[in-house]
Amino acid sequence: MILALAGGVGGAKLAEGLAAVLPDGALTVVVNTGDDFEHLGLHISPDIDTITYTLAGINNREQGWGIEGETWNFMSALERMGGETWFRLGDRDLATHVERTRRLKSETLSAITADFAKRLGIRQNIVPMTDDRMRTIVLTDEGRLTFQEYFVQRACKPKYDTLTFEGLGQAKASPGVLAALNSPDLEAIVICPSNPFLSILPIVGVRGIRELLDRRRVPIVAVSPIVGGKAIKGPAAKMMREHGWKPSAVSVARYYFVNLRRIADGFVIDKADARLAGQIKGPETLVTDTIMRDRDDKIRLATEVLDFAKRVSPPPNSRSWE
Amino acid sequence: MILALAGGVGGAKLAEGLAAVLPDGALTVVVNTGDDFEHLGLHISPDIDTITYTLAGINNREQGWGIEGETWNFMSALERMGGETWFRLGDRDLATHVERTRRLKSETLSAITADFAKRLGIRQNIVPMTDDRMRTIVLTDEGRLTFQEYFVQRACKPKYDTLTFEGLGQAKASPGVLAALNSPDLEAIVICPSNPFLSILPIVGVRGIRELLDRRRVPIVAVSPIVGGKAIKGPAAKMMREHGWKPSAVSVARYYFVNLRRIADGFVIDKADARLAGQIKGPETLVTDTIMRDRDDKIRLATEVLDFAKRVSPPPNSRSWE
Repeated sequence: MILALAGGVGGAKLAEGLAAVLPDGALTVVVNTGDDFEHLGLHISPDIDTITYTLAGINNREQGWGIEGETWNFMSALERMGGETWFRLGDRDLATHVERTRRLKSETLSAITADFAKRLGIRQNIVPMTDDRMRTIVLTDEGRLTFQEYFVQRACKPKYDTLTFEGLGQAKASPGVLAALNSPDLEAIVICPSNPFLSILPIVGVRGIRELLDRRRVPIVAVSPIVGGKAIKGPAAKMMREHGWKPSAVSVARYYFVNLRRIADGFVIDKADARLAGQIKGPETLVTDTIMRDRDDKIRLATEVLDFAKRVSPPPNSRSWE
Repeated sequence: MILALAGGVGGAKLAEGLAAVLPDGALTVVVNTGDDFEHLGLHISPDIDTITYTLAGINNREQGWGIEGETWNFMSALERMGGETWFRLGDRDLATHVERTRRLKSETLSAITADFAKRLGIRQNIVPMTDDRMRTIVLTDEGRLTFQEYFVQRACKPKYDTLTFEGLGQAKASPGVLAALNSPDLEAIVICPSNPFLSILPIVGVRGIRELLDRRRVPIVAVSPIVGGKAIKGPAAKMMREHGWKPSAVSVARYYFVNLRRIADGFVIDKADARLAGQIKGPETLVTDTIMRDRDDKIRLATEVLDFAKRVSPPPNSRSWE
């Protein structure tokens, strides 16, 4: 059994590859919920939806989020009614948010996510990192912004200073993450090419998850979301620069190995960054083609990542530095 | 200034005619909210929406409710996600419900209804009968049903026994109704051809409205929703029959004049019922063509109703029987 840690689009691509090469039920994807927010009175879980739509094969491949063949009549009617339209919700996608919001009154996000996945014919486990409320707040030179305000409404333009995670101290790991991390069948953990600060840090920051990652003697392999000094998607490179770091696969490896205390035993970088392999200190390194353009790319990378995970070893004792 | 009392489809047709013949701002339509309900976590006001879409000219004329040229992708996605689909919500229509529900957290239904009307270019006043929660419950041989459960989900099949109006004792008249009923410019009140029990009774039952109808010395003219012993739309005739009444314009006239205590000074019946005119005791009677097939029909009937209102007189003292 494999556990994948994922944010949205980049995570969904590798998760699709892993789902294709692993037997039914052998993949659990734990998804960041720090980007969740309330909008128009609806609970929106952007990363869970991207992973779900992708594994269901109904995702819009061009825009990276939302549903293929979507229509936008709700949005244009909402504009006519004076509603907020900066966050685009398609007519089909909206059903997910409306039904989730309704069910959240009496059910957990985990239960709803699992049921939606089942209804869409998904045979992998998609689990939120927590069923508790946790919100990523971006402190910027324009003030305090919720993640979607920063990412969508302001298009990542404000200079990023710090992230805070509201509710992270109280949030408990969801039952699905705990089950996966406690499973005797767990063979490896894959950190998908997602934003290390916005997607991975919140997941490993949840109470119980970090401790179990430490304790379990299974290899952790991470895939760099930075290729050629640029993020494939999203603000990871910009955020590194604003943090005074050189945006590169080396910085990501250092972040996972040093800042997050040995959270990667193996680190996968792109061929374009092959010359940087020698600078990566700590994790073992695999150099391969990490850009996932089509389904074949996803399957090939997933296969290589799983093979690599078999060759790397977890640290003999704890993952922390004591 | 004219005040019209209306439910959904039948009320909307005459309101459209009245709007066409009266100067801008001279028509206030007070709308039944007893059929409002919470569905999928959204506040839905079916009668307000029908009146609003009709006066905005964007209503679906064939089905009688909803928006012209509507799409249904939300609904099919909701079905896929296991949501309830017995109440059909179109993609454009949904924007009204989502935005209204969001705004109801901090605004009154009156304020939201007025703003939506303005945004849709409507130059008449559309006001809910109350901003308080009032719910029509149908007691049937299959038990207690909310109005939409009875009307839409069960297609009016259960035998109707009694109606109860939850919250009617506490509900206060909305500011817009009070303003219209207190206005020195009020010339006449038109009871649209809506269901007497489901649409008109709740409106006149709201605290403050009945008292002002009594007190104001303006004529009230009602249009029969029953033609040739049948309701143009909806369950009015069936409900009369189940109540032991013969479904006819005569029964409606008696209901308004006797049961609701002289709530009509003039009563408009269809040519098809001309032979019944002599049986109508109490209100003066106008016989004309009341079936509104197209816009010309609506305008002609509105004109005749307004002329008729000029010829009838309110009772010299109170409308009650003391």
